[in-house]
Amino acid sequence: MKIWDKGFSVNEKIEKFTVGKDRILDVFIAKYDAIASKAQANMLTKVGIITAEDNGKLQSALDEIINRCEAGEFVIDENYEDVHSKIEAELIVKTGDAGKMIHTARSRNDQVLVAIQLFLKDYLTETREKVLQLIDILVEKADEHKDELMPGYTHFQAAMPSSFGMWFSAYAENLLSDLYFLDAAYKVADQNPLGSGAGFGTSLNIDRRETTKELGFGEMAVSSVGAQMLRGKTEKSTAVAIAMLSATLSKMSYDLVMYNSQDLGFVKLPKEMTTGSSIMPHKKNPDVFELTRAHCNRLQALPNDITMTINNLPSGYHRDFQILKEFLFEPMLQFNDILDILIFAIPQLEINDDFMNQEKYDGIYTVENINHLLQSGTSFRDAYRLVGISVDEGTYEPHKSFKTTHLGSIHNLGLDEIRAKIKRYSGR
Amino acid sequence: MKIWDKGFSVNEKIEKFTVGKDRILDVFIAKYDAIASKAQANMLTKVGIITAEDNGKLQSALDEIINRCEAGEFVIDENYEDVHSKIEAELIVKTGDAGKMIHTARSRNDQVLVAIQLFLKDYLTETREKVLQLIDILVEKADEHKDELMPGYTHFQAAMPSSFGMWFSAYAENLLSDLYFLDAAYKVADQNPLGSGAGFGTSLNIDRRETTKELGFGEMAVSSVGAQMLRGKTEKSTAVAIAMLSATLSKMSYDLVMYNSQDLGFVKLPKEMTTGSSIMPHKKNPDVFELTRAHCNRLQALPNDITMTINNLPSGYHRDFQILKEFLFEPMLQFNDILDILIFAIPQLEINDDFMNQEKYDGIYTVENINHLLQSGTSFRDAYRLVGISVDEGTYEPHKSFKTTHLGSIHNLGLDEIRAKIKRYSGR
Amino acid sequence: MKIWDKGFSVNEKIEKFTVGKDRILDVFIAKYDAIASKAQANMLTKVGIITAEDNGKLQSALDEIINRCEAGEFVIDENYEDVHSKIEAELIVKTGDAGKMIHTARSRNDQVLVAIQLFLKDYLTETREKVLQLIDILVEKADEHKDELMPGYTHFQAAMPSSFGMWFSAYAENLLSDLYFLDAAYKVADQNPLGSGAGFGTSLNIDRRETTKELGFGEMAVSSVGAQMLRGKTEKSTAVAIAMLSATLSKMSYDLVMYNSQDLGFVKLPKEMTTGSSIMPHKKNPDVFELTRAHCNRLQALPNDITMTINNLPSGYHRDFQILKEFLFEPMLQFNDILDILIFAIPQLEINDDFMNQEKYDGIYTVENINHLLQSGTSFRDAYRLVGISVDEGTYEPHKSFKTTHLGSIHNLGLDEIRAKIKRYSGR
Amino acid sequence: MKIWDKGFSVNEKIEKFTVGKDRILDVFIAKYDAIASKAQANMLTKVGIITAEDNGKLQSALDEIINRCEAGEFVIDENYEDVHSKIEAELIVKTGDAGKMIHTARSRNDQVLVAIQLFLKDYLTETREKVLQLIDILVEKADEHKDELMPGYTHFQAAMPSSFGMWFSAYAENLLSDLYFLDAAYKVADQNPLGSGAGFGTSLNIDRRETTKELGFGEMAVSSVGAQMLRGKTEKSTAVAIAMLSATLSKMSYDLVMYNSQDLGFVKLPKEMTTGSSIMPHKKNPDVFELTRAHCNRLQALPNDITMTINNLPSGYHRDFQILKEFLFEPMLQFNDILDILIFAIPQLEINDDFMNQEKYDGIYTVENINHLLQSGTSFRDAYRLVGISVDEGTYEPHKSFKTTHLGSIHNLGLDEIRAKIKRYSGR
Repeated sequence: MKIWDKGFSVNEKIEKFTVGKDRILDVFIAKYDAIASKAQANMLTKVGIITAEDNGKLQSALDEIINRCEAGEFVIDENYEDVHSKIEAELIVKTGDAGKMIHTARSRNDQVLVAIQLFLKDYLTETREKVLQLIDILVEKADEHKDELMPGYTHFQAAMPSSFGMWFSAYAENLLSDLYFLDAAYKVADQNPLGSGAGFGTSLNIDRRETTKELGFGEMAVSSVGAQMLRGKTEKSTAVAIAMLSATLSKMSYDLVMYNSQDLGFVKLPKEMTTGSSIMPHKKNPDVFELTRAHCNRLQALPNDITMTINNLPSGYHRDFQILKEFLFEPMLQFNDILDILIFAIPQLEINDDFMNQEKYDGIYTVENINHLLQSGTSFRDAYRLVGISVDEGTYEPHKSFKTTHLGSIHNLGLDEIRAKIKRYSGR
Repeated sequence: MKIWDKGFSVNEKIEKFTVGKDRILDVFIAKYDAIASKAQANMLTKVGIITAEDNGKLQSALDEIINRCEAGEFVIDENYEDVHSKIEAELIVKTGDAGKMIHTARSRNDQVLVAIQLFLKDYLTETREKVLQLIDILVEKADEHKDELMPGYTHFQAAMPSSFGMWFSAYAENLLSDLYFLDAAYKVADQNPLGSGAGFGTSLNIDRRETTKELGFGEMAVSSVGAQMLRGKTEKSTAVAIAMLSATLSKMSYDLVMYNSQDLGFVKLPKEMTTGSSIMPHKKNPDVFELTRAHCNRLQALPNDITMTINNLPSGYHRDFQILKEFLFEPMLQFNDILDILIFAIPQLEINDDFMNQEKYDGIYTVENINHLLQSGTSFRDAYRLVGISVDEGTYEPHKSFKTTHLGSIHNLGLDEIRAKIKRYSGR
Repeated sequence: MKIWDKGFSVNEKIEKFTVGKDRILDVFIAKYDAIASKAQANMLTKVGIITAEDNGKLQSALDEIINRCEAGEFVIDENYEDVHSKIEAELIVKTGDAGKMIHTARSRNDQVLVAIQLFLKDYLTETREKVLQLIDILVEKADEHKDELMPGYTHFQAAMPSSFGMWFSAYAENLLSDLYFLDAAYKVADQNPLGSGAGFGTSLNIDRRETTKELGFGEMAVSSVGAQMLRGKTEKSTAVAIAMLSATLSKMSYDLVMYNSQDLGFVKLPKEMTTGSSIMPHKKNPDVFELTRAHCNRLQALPNDITMTINNLPSGYHRDFQILKEFLFEPMLQFNDILDILIFAIPQLEINDDFMNQEKYDGIYTVENINHLLQSGTSFRDAYRLVGISVDEGTYEPHKSFKTTHLGSIHNLGLDEIRAKIKRYSGR
Repeated sequence: MKIWDKGFSVNEKIEKFTVGKDRILDVFIAKYDAIASKAQANMLTKVGIITAEDNGKLQSALDEIINRCEAGEFVIDENYEDVHSKIEAELIVKTGDAGKMIHTARSRNDQVLVAIQLFLKDYLTETREKVLQLIDILVEKADEHKDELMPGYTHFQAAMPSSFGMWFSAYAENLLSDLYFLDAAYKVADQNPLGSGAGFGTSLNIDRRETTKELGFGEMAVSSVGAQMLRGKTEKSTAVAIAMLSATLSKMSYDLVMYNSQDLGFVKLPKEMTTGSSIMPHKKNPDVFELTRAHCNRLQALPNDITMTINNLPSGYHRDFQILKEFLFEPMLQFNDILDILIFAIPQLEINDDFMNQEKYDGIYTVENINHLLQSGTSFRDAYRLVGISVDEGTYEPHKSFKTTHLGSIHNLGLDEIRAKIKRYSGR
């Protein structure tokens, strides 16, 4: 009956269970552990705990590890339970007694946390760049398709004339709103916990200002207890930022999946983004956008996963925090892949040009008919009534020629204002 | 069997179902609807759609409504399904034809949304103030109790000496981190959607810059499609901010509930915050902190509630958005009540003074014993081994006199640095 | 700035905060508290703690309270913080010393819990009836519309011919699957916790078998510690059952909202279920189904709300449990309203008859063309290729006359099999 | 800056993105795909679509695949995007034209779904066995430790005498309650979707009763549309069952982590279940129970993850469903590992014997003092007052000798009744 038992003994299971996926996942933070160790060694040298000579050896050995990390050549073999024991062991092999000093006045707790903080800062910076790139693309697409109308829907009902210019720029502006949360997550990550030890500091004479400065943190997490409380909070903050962005990208994908249907038929998706059916030769399934939607929806649940795991634990470290890596790191990777794919796909979106004149969309101009009557002096209530009667009696003729003037409307998209808004945000 | 049927017919149920709780909940946004209507009327006057005379009447009538809202005297009676129809009806009664003009170039959709945005801006401003007040209190308490030690826990195990100075300041700093998300929510709310109509703009000649300026919005939600997409997003943004703050307050409450137990006994809770038992005369139940924890935990689920409700809906208005008010407004109120209660309770917390010298906590000084050996030249590995042996053999004598020097540690809390950090954030 | 402060002092706020909404919400369980008190009094009489005479008085007084509950006349006034203190006070007024005995060998904890268990049992029984009624309606609608075809969609693409017969019966069967969870919730509720006291039993000589029998519980929650652990678990079990049913009803509503659009136009919704637009006279917005969807989606988040509130609390009562009533009872009510509305609406659904022959749906017959070729001896791979070529070259002619034979297909819906499946489940 | 780019081109990324982790995850369902294919081939033979000879070849080839699956030797190489294409290709290689017939009257959609259903049935059966084994262990532990008292807590306050007998049996009974949901999930999985094709059936003359019978399904998912709607629902049903069980195991772990602290010190955890600290030689960290708690908490969020992914999708297949495997299969595996670890660990739990007589627990006997006074004729209110006064005045002497008699209490655990309850459930 054991459907996937691999024959491990219970003791092996316990070892596997406690180590978890640390060996695989810690590769992501190996570089940052080495960077933080360099700062720690420099500081310990400055306060007289490590000699200049030993520090020289440590700096070289750590630089070499960083190089291997960047070349993708750093591996955590089975002799080590995590990246921290692996790096420490390497340092001892290469530098002897110097390596034995590196853990002075540091605990595993602040060591992991500082590496995670540095990692998240880089991740969030990269993600922010990609999102800004996608925003620019959306504004350009809005410009490119500014004259192409589409029905605007409310209650899933074709309601009023809309346009792809407004649609593309809508997503640009909404992604910009989401970036406010990414910036908040960055600020949470931009606090140095190094020196807080196991969450209660140390009686050794360390200088936390030094490591804060060398590592480029904007702030110090001053209280040692408070620094440790960032564990979980900082991961969740990043998850919240990803979730907010994902909500917008999921909605955009949902629109595109529908716009690609035979019933709406507004867009033609890039060929690489659709697949055929093994039994229905007429279909062009929008798989990439369905999967983008699915992954973005799953990512929206991440903050809840994290909260469920870390909630109702009193202050202080709990081993529970370890498993956050297991369900956070891979989705973070996936999210940036999605951004890459959209950056590739969106420029290739084509708009069909034959759908607006279908009779089923005649009704969307009733507001224009009403506005037209308003301009000739009829009151709104009368105009509404008259157009309503014409719809009921079948004499309604859609008033398709109209002209909007206000910012953010079909004929005045306000793209320059949107570009200025982006610039105010991004500062470039 | 019908356990709570109140005898409504199905048609009445349908009416109740579609109106929902709008009549009750809209009272929260009535004032903001009136404020936005004033801006709308002024703008319509400027572009020549309303006469100056009519506008004068509208401004007076709306001012009067705002006064009633502020006095708590504005009620939405059963003749009206929501605040918008109620206010419009009042305006018509009081100003005649002028009132009939107020809805020109506006849709229910941008009307609700602009009122919600203004409401959230005020709410978030008020909440930010209360949180900053609580932060100040926590820093003061850290100062007051800076010499009072407590065991620091990891894995629920008494691990090392900690202090109430570090504990109080930890929560101050963590709440500050949470405020970054409140600021993000504020920025989302600080975008003017008025003029976006039903999400596709209008062909009437309105001027959205005017209303943006008069209403004090920092930005305009330019794209009409994008403006409408803020519905749901802006509510969720506020919920996320509340959830982040709630996580910290829940943890603080959890600590206090435990610290109040007979087993730990670190604190004495304010009398109003505890209750006795109807059958156990010896108990002092920490009900207020249990309820704070419970409500804060429930609030942490709010963003998920909202996402579940609005997710996988394509762009454009859906009636689904209406129910967000039902499960967001009341919890928002509750959250600020919690802040008031904590602002009242925290200053009254007393620390017991007899618990640190219990034998069960002797082990927490082992790190100090090790550090002491380090200072006399023993290597870390040797020192760790020696202390371990003394623990096993029962000869261990805790080294209780120690002195920390680094920022954020027991004897150097860094409260001035924390105060400076708060000032950098709050700008005052 | 205080946007909704009602002028309460902090002490009043604390009192309000700890009492919460108990006075309002406890009305739902008042009847069950009285029923359980009757059983408790009878049992106490049997074991000799209460005299037969006193018990007679108690039974009469409690019957009278039950009558008032059923007549909707039982109110918890402000002098009492909850239903339990209110009922006990009434008993003392009416029966004197007898009333003072009713709380013997009982704690508030098992008293609330047994009332909740009885309440949930009734609620789940009523809900099950309504769902079975809706299932029957769906099977009847499947029969009524068994000849009406519709396009079947995959990936939002019109894929193959489907039918309203399959569609209606699909939801009938899926609701039946959901009822398995309702039955699980019922079994959780069908365990008697009375006698477990505050979770650790009592040294008084009570007989828990008596109350189990009189109250009609299927099982006893034997361990007193375990009985108390049902608090939270039983509420969550009911929430899970509602959530499973809600998922199905949400999907059905989503379908109907889309089928009501101008783009699909498959159904005509009952008039009471749609609303017009204040500015677009052509629209028929499917508000009731949008709100059904929205509420059902929000209900799907309920189990998560509960878990977030009660998770990571060690065994034993916590005041946190109190707030479950606040966010569970009202949604439970709402869910049964939704069932009533659907029981009213579904029979009135009309199917439009003019949509299947649109050219845009020609592609859905490609599988039939392939199957037709298969029957004349062509291999599947060749047939697929030939039909694909005809689609590409524009020579494709849909093979619209086809006949299915297997159970659960267009021309053999298997409604009798479904009816038998329902009967096997419901036993009637 | 690209922190984990592996140098894939966008097109490679798209391919990776759409294939996802199917190659790895499909190994779990390979055996079930082969089993279902055997039933499909037998049925197609019976209705005359496949010859007996061809079927013979297919049965042998599929049996051989099943053997490899069971031996852990079945691998999906990179030439195939999933298990279905891999198996079909193998069949064609081994059986020629026979292999080309296997996909007749079947779609990828019902093929995946039937394999998932069979897989879940086996998984749930295995899990149920393990849970029942754990329940038995807990009842035995209750018996073993029936005389060992502990303080019972409410509001985190030591409240009344409790016992390990009640504590162990509490978890046994609560796990039994959770199994009701596992049975519900099993019933959802026990419905045959094979023959529903892409969700709309087929016009080929298949016999779904045959496959239902051969595959051992208790019911048929009759409506083809409804059968397809089980996708997502069946995975979620299993996730709900796991989540319910996880809630109980998380709570048990939480208790044990606390009971292992220096402050409570009730239990001694098995050595393999604790770890030391690298800097604090006095600690015994309960890592395994912390990780059990963490994983169980994360598993409690799984139903929400699934709902977020599949909600608000209209009926019919969506590619979104594919990713459910990515976040469901591995946690399912982990859950059964946790059960194995608990089955190993719980029997080794030792109870310390020196903690009950600490002065801090004197208060827990106040109820006994009151009950003692009751038995000598004092009224409850008087007794409560007298004991309260003695506590306040420091004259209180705990009445530690007491005797409980009712089922589920300290001195009458009712283990035989619990064993009978388990038997009524499990039928053995």
